[in-house]
Amino acid sequence: MVNIMKTYLDCIPCFFRQVIDAGRMAGLDDKQQKKVVDKFASILPELSLDMSPPEIARLTNKLLQKTAKSKDLYAKIKQKSNQIGLRMYEKLKQKVEASKDQLLAAVEIAIIGNIIDYGAKNHLDLDKELDRMLRKEKQLIKKEKKRIFNYKQFKEQLSRAKTILYLADNAGETVFDRVLIEQIKRIDPNKIIIYAVKDKPVINDALLEDALICGIDKQAEIISSGSDAPGTVLALCSKKFLDVYNKADMIISKGQGNFEALAAVNKRLIFFLFMVKCAVVAENVDCKIGDITLLFNSGD
Amino acid sequence: MVNIMKTYLDCIPCFFRQVIDAGRMAGLDDKQQKKVVDKFASILPELSLDMSPPEIARLTNKLLQKTAKSKDLYAKIKQKSNQIGLRMYEKLKQKVEASKDQLLAAVEIAIIGNIIDYGAKNHLDLDKELDRMLRKEKQLIKKEKKRIFNYKQFKEQLSRAKTILYLADNAGETVFDRVLIEQIKRIDPNKIIIYAVKDKPVINDALLEDALICGIDKQAEIISSGSDAPGTVLALCSKKFLDVYNKADMIISKGQGNFEALAAVNKRLIFFLFMVKCAVVAENVDCKIGDITLLFNSGD
Repeated sequence: MVNIMKTYLDCIPCFFRQVIDAGRMAGLDDKQQKKVVDKFASILPELSLDMSPPEIARLTNKLLQKTAKSKDLYAKIKQKSNQIGLRMYEKLKQKVEASKDQLLAAVEIAIIGNIIDYGAKNHLDLDKELDRMLRKEKQLIKKEKKRIFNYKQFKEQLSRAKTILYLADNAGETVFDRVLIEQIKRIDPNKIIIYAVKDKPVINDALLEDALICGIDKQAEIISSGSDAPGTVLALCSKKFLDVYNKADMIISKGQGNFEALAAVNKRLIFFLFMVKCAVVAENVDCKIGDITLLFNSGD
Repeated sequence: MVNIMKTYLDCIPCFFRQVIDAGRMAGLDDKQQKKVVDKFASILPELSLDMSPPEIARLTNKLLQKTAKSKDLYAKIKQKSNQIGLRMYEKLKQKVEASKDQLLAAVEIAIIGNIIDYGAKNHLDLDKELDRMLRKEKQLIKKEKKRIFNYKQFKEQLSRAKTILYLADNAGETVFDRVLIEQIKRIDPNKIIIYAVKDKPVINDALLEDALICGIDKQAEIISSGSDAPGTVLALCSKKFLDVYNKADMIISKGQGNFEALAAVNKRLIFFLFMVKCAVVAENVDCKIGDITLLFNSGD
């Protein structure tokens, strides 16, 4: 169903765009920005397209941190995203409770949370956009936005799974994840859910502190992936994380970064919940940019 | 009115995108493409943002030519564009003749011709798109697409000018230029029009052969800019060209490449006729992408 997700030629302009956008957010001036761009350009010939995009994004992030002399460029953005998420929490819960299929609503909300990242990059008014999505009466997400939505398999697998590994994506989005996690626990309080965050700051990815602020610890155990790649690049993860990864009955993977890192790894039962954010991934999964995707990877 | 047009940080991802698109059009395989991308990346640290975008695009074009072992990567595309243009010629003439303000119609047609380039990059069905534009009954171009349209100054200056330098942009577009040139000559057969093309192949820019195929020589003298930059970078132009450039009573400059190269050069009376094709230029001239722009640079 899915092609192997490596880095495509078309990802290269996008890395440069990301470096510039991130540098701007971090308050670098044009001279500093050009320096980071030049540094990335100078290592590009050594990078293979067989690397996954998050592996390369990890390197650009390191270059940015070094030039900006800051280990956490997105600290303020993450803080703001957490606040936005937390402000919405009650509304999200009400939305789930008012829904006919509460699990479906919670799944959709978890994916909607993935626009936090997109919003930051596209100057969306996040508050308004999220509000607009949640105001919709009958269905949370239009059918045409759900070209790939393997909810049936998700529900089935969930009913069987005892241990669930939940791979976090961005700060703030964690609140939306909490809504899904709470719904899963509501259905079956005996499920064991492990929520994996990144080990060190990378872009706006959620860290332990974000998961704690957003209240994930009330329903799940929080662990670190052991890595600072903005996606679960297994080769960079800790042994402890890999242990959980290999033993979990089901993996819920949030965001495009985790998809990019894991789509090529075809050995585990993974459900990818993400908003499609670029043309390369859209073509890869036969979707459109902006699609709300629940993609089942059977592990066969 | 216009900020100085240098290369902006945001142009850098776009150069990489252009390199990849051009390589694809030239039939390079992924390995060759990566090689060109890597070569460009390795010279990027040496390039200053004070260069104009066409100066940098000239270098990427040279890298592509070298890797593809071809001096004219866009030969087929240019040939096709000329054919499309020539096929439309009679229709374009009729459109002008049926118009209340024939000069205005010819100016608008000349700018519409500038979508040929854009079409190639955006997989537009050019034939259909041009046909659609020309079918419109009352006005050729919607008012909201003409945010900057200094037609009054253009008409006034034209009435006074004896010698007009017309800076060509792309192959095929030359037919649309011919329609405007013919209209100018119809109003005053004594005007001297000099049509400047690029000296050597660069992207799909018009060369002497394209101007001849499209019949420009019937109404204008054709000269070379002496340069192979995809825009009139004065420092790279021949003495002969610069002589004409400095003495002409009026300069009509077609396309974004010429705008990018000349917008910073504030000493001549130039009318820039182009479709706005990127966000950087759009912001620079306070327009939107896709706008049909007739921008007056007073030379003061």
